[in-house]
Amino acid sequence: MWTRPLSGEGVVPSRMRVEIGEQPAALRRTFDALLPQVAELKALARDTRQVLFIARGSSDNAAVYGQYLCAARAGRLASLGSPSLATAYHADLDLGGVLAVAVSQSGATEEIVTTLDWARHHGARTVAITNEAASPLAELADATLVTRAGDELAVPATKTYTTQLAAIAVLALSLARAGAGLEPGELRRVPEAVSGMLGSASAAEELAQRLVDARTLVVSGRGFAYSTALEIALKLKETCYVTAVGLSYADLVHGPIAILDARTPALLVAAADGPMLPEMTALAHRIATTTAPVYGIGGDATFAAACHTTLPGPPASGLPEYLAPFALVVPGQLLVEALARAKGLDPDAPRGLDKVTQTDA
Amino acid sequence: MWTRPLSGEGVVPSRMRVEIGEQPAALRRTFDALLPQVAELKALARDTRQVLFIARGSSDNAAVYGQYLCAARAGRLASLGSPSLATAYHADLDLGGVLAVAVSQSGATEEIVTTLDWARHHGARTVAITNEAASPLAELADATLVTRAGDELAVPATKTYTTQLAAIAVLALSLARAGAGLEPGELRRVPEAVSGMLGSASAAEELAQRLVDARTLVVSGRGFAYSTALEIALKLKETCYVTAVGLSYADLVHGPIAILDARTPALLVAAADGPMLPEMTALAHRIATTTAPVYGIGGDATFAAACHTTLPGPPASGLPEYLAPFALVVPGQLLVEALARAKGLDPDAPRGLDKVTQTDA
Repeated sequence: MWTRPLSGEGVVPSRMRVEIGEQPAALRRTFDALLPQVAELKALARDTRQVLFIARGSSDNAAVYGQYLCAARAGRLASLGSPSLATAYHADLDLGGVLAVAVSQSGATEEIVTTLDWARHHGARTVAITNEAASPLAELADATLVTRAGDELAVPATKTYTTQLAAIAVLALSLARAGAGLEPGELRRVPEAVSGMLGSASAAEELAQRLVDARTLVVSGRGFAYSTALEIALKLKETCYVTAVGLSYADLVHGPIAILDARTPALLVAAADGPMLPEMTALAHRIATTTAPVYGIGGDATFAAACHTTLPGPPASGLPEYLAPFALVVPGQLLVEALARAKGLDPDAPRGLDKVTQTDA
Repeated sequence: MWTRPLSGEGVVPSRMRVEIGEQPAALRRTFDALLPQVAELKALARDTRQVLFIARGSSDNAAVYGQYLCAARAGRLASLGSPSLATAYHADLDLGGVLAVAVSQSGATEEIVTTLDWARHHGARTVAITNEAASPLAELADATLVTRAGDELAVPATKTYTTQLAAIAVLALSLARAGAGLEPGELRRVPEAVSGMLGSASAAEELAQRLVDARTLVVSGRGFAYSTALEIALKLKETCYVTAVGLSYADLVHGPIAILDARTPALLVAAADGPMLPEMTALAHRIATTTAPVYGIGGDATFAAACHTTLPGPPASGLPEYLAPFALVVPGQLLVEALARAKGLDPDAPRGLDKVTQTDA
């Protein structure tokens, strides 16, 4: 267990920084544990037509990734449910044919447990994705994918987030028709690609110095990387107290782009290939003609040249676009951790955040 | 047609302000035109199990309202689709049993038209909600609900937004089982309730003066009013260039509440009754113990007492919670229009926004 720096002992890294570094091993353990569950998931999902994710916070951002992955790579409609429809409005829906997938690190967030239970009572088959095998959520679900993140001591989720992505990828693999373009072999490349991102730590420190006085920031991505933009924006809000707006490329260019100026930089997240890269590069060029600084995570050399500075993401040879979010989030996590310290904040214990989130106090 | 103020002629209201005032009549016309289509919609929706909204920008916020209305009051699962799954990833989904509902003021936003066409080719029945009867979207859909907003000359959507809500309410009415708690008679009360909101104009001016230097703002609601919070936050970004974050109550209290401080006020939106009001009131109390100003739209007397200042919403006797968003957005529109002027901006022609939104230039 890591403790706060002691005088005279030099710099002890934050727990958050340590846990960012633990992600490759956590991902390897999680894929090892969950890939053997594909047959069980296939059987459970038989006769279901669509996926309904139930989540909050970082888990909700992981679900956004799941929404794209299920639809684009597994041929299955997927959407995000609103827990309040169950917990406050007691909506009476026919959820036959629905695979309800609740995502919660602790497995103990009451509204998520209640909503999954509601889905079950209304005819859905149920899956829990949680880091706690002995949680109420795991007990309730027809099948449970236990992420192997290990203990996460920093309050901001890092390795529990990326291992949720891993569980979601295994789920999508279970739903995909044979040959639909989701391969266990490709998933196996994820830990090494994530490991390659850890070398960005010093570049992240430098970018954090540039952002130290920014009170506002827009984080944008499109397609698969949209989920990463949302997750980085959430982390910036809760850990660095920056008013960070996470917007899809399309939502940004439809009006809100007006908020960008010298004091409101843009941070664009892009994979190294795929249909979104030319659009994100054109957006970087467009923003660069204004007074707003434009920073990037990922992309290719052309994208990097269009930005004032970038943190490298996974090369196209390392991960295909649909798996890039596993790696793209890591430079973002490093940036958030460095920015919190640069602002004199404790990245491990931000105000306003608890490890087990409860919506109603 | 309204023109810019001429010297010596006194103050000519902005087009946006005029169009805000036209909403009661526009809503009356729209309900008159669309309620007779209920039988047609019922026939079209027969054998469909769920609704998939396809929209961007303000229309997307209207769709969020539709998501809650369809589920909580019409017993039908509803979700928001991501156009890029169609336009960029060409996702191959089975959309049998899906009622795809595209919402677009112009009916000409290419990605929305393409996505509705994609849904149709994948087995969905299709509905267009648009203000343009002769648009590509209307031509494509199995059924079209033409909103009767009339010409909207200001770039920020106001009456086209609330008439979209009206079309969505008529759609939900068509989907509801008899006795499910959605009544044409209740919809008919909407225009008058909206009219009652126009008296808030001077209170909105005063609140705009308090917010004139705010670069950042958090707008939050829960349940039905969440859609209103998102719409006000979008308008603040695109019309006032304020970095406004729209967050559900639950997402706000899970961490991002940390961004609130003396320079980042909260604007809370609540109906005058319903299960969310006690939570929103408790949230106002909680924020009031910090350095952050907390302003409100709607709620009841207890909610108002917990906020530093509020703009009144519809009384519980005027509209039930599930219809309150029609009226709650109006004080928000008045605030946005006043704030733009207070900042020396032209509310009718913000930078970065076009009337017909196209994602790809």
